[in-house]
Amino acid sequence: MSPQPLASLHLQSKEAGSASRKRTKQGEQTRQLILRAAVSMASSEGLESLTIGKLATELKMSKSGLFAHFKSKEDLQLSTFNEACTIFNEEVMQPALKTRKGVERLWTLCTVWLEYGDRAVFFGGEFFTNVAAEYDGRQGPMRDVVAKTMRDWLKYMERLIRESIETGELKLDTDAEQIAFEFNALFYGASLAFQLNMEQTTGDRMKRAVKDKLLSVAVDPVALNELFCSAK
Amino acid sequence: MSPQPLASLHLQSKEAGSASRKRTKQGEQTRQLILRAAVSMASSEGLESLTIGKLATELKMSKSGLFAHFKSKEDLQLSTFNEACTIFNEEVMQPALKTRKGVERLWTLCTVWLEYGDRAVFFGGEFFTNVAAEYDGRQGPMRDVVAKTMRDWLKYMERLIRESIETGELKLDTDAEQIAFEFNALFYGASLAFQLNMEQTTGDRMKRAVKDKLLSVAVDPVALNELFCSAK
Repeated sequence: MSPQPLASLHLQSKEAGSASRKRTKQGEQTRQLILRAAVSMASSEGLESLTIGKLATELKMSKSGLFAHFKSKEDLQLSTFNEACTIFNEEVMQPALKTRKGVERLWTLCTVWLEYGDRAVFFGGEFFTNVAAEYDGRQGPMRDVVAKTMRDWLKYMERLIRESIETGELKLDTDAEQIAFEFNALFYGASLAFQLNMEQTTGDRMKRAVKDKLLSVAVDPVALNELFCSAK
Repeated sequence: MSPQPLASLHLQSKEAGSASRKRTKQGEQTRQLILRAAVSMASSEGLESLTIGKLATELKMSKSGLFAHFKSKEDLQLSTFNEACTIFNEEVMQPALKTRKGVERLWTLCTVWLEYGDRAVFFGGEFFTNVAAEYDGRQGPMRDVVAKTMRDWLKYMERLIRESIETGELKLDTDAEQIAFEFNALFYGASLAFQLNMEQTTGDRMKRAVKDKLLSVAVDPVALNELFCSAK
């Protein structure tokens, strides 16, 4: 498996950032800082309302200084989305890849995803949920990128569920597509509910939902339950 | 049980609409038409970007004509949200109340909710999901109303699950709060995924998720499965 399952987006990022392709090291660091701030802004206010002007005010930079990094509003939006994918990849997908293939990896992915949200450094769920809600009623290149990312994510979870069937931990007739659909919907929906009502029980409820579902298709529920207790 | 479990919102609606409290019948009909159009607009573009000016252009009415019905942008937004709740109540909650108390009512609520989305007259999920995503990062009276509505909705589902325990259909140790949390998250998340990717299998996957969960806590899974097959 590629270490970057959302690689298609990274390709797109390079295209989108063509204006600044030959960046100096310092320029690259500045761009990075700008993008992290943009991800943070978009997490609460959305990607559509993100403009070079707003970002310049936030970062106390000149608009022309920002234009040196992003040729247009669209370039800034796409680069910001790709930056959020990179962060998600580093913080959620990579730690899971370090664990054993099978349910342990799947469970780590889900719990790290939740902890990542809890840390609230940048609420992944919120960014992706808000962006999904923002573009689901629109047309255009950003909608296509957002929709493709969700499809890629579903396929990625499906793969991890199939691997758990191959390791003999989940039953042979487990419907990987159905479970990936449910986990994806649960995470998006729970992130929305959490942001709105700040119920501190959300993380525990999510873990229980994921655990119950996996136990219902486990070959050996007792062994799986032990794994849930011992795993991070 | 009150036939209008979201009654608190309707009270708020009356307060918000105080400017037009003494409306004529014709005035009431016009207001209704305006609000249905507003719900429709907000379903795709969000409630925050809904303005009297935009709505006037859409309905080919004068801005002053609209001001006669809504004293401010906030009044229009709150009235639109309340109208969406009224539609949801009429189209989803009332049909469920006509069925037998217990799992049949719970199952009807879930399936009508899904069919309601499928009809796409006004995608309930989309309106409430988009509005939830819109206000989860904001502060103010609209956020409070949106958050309270989700809490009321969770409590309503919980009540229907508890009734299914009382009728002896679901096990005594069923965690009603956990299941209501999962159904709520699933519906919000699935609505987002559906709007984004238009996967025609979404409705079937949702029904299966709800069915599997209820079967896992059923006293008599065979009888419950028959109910799912025979119920609307």
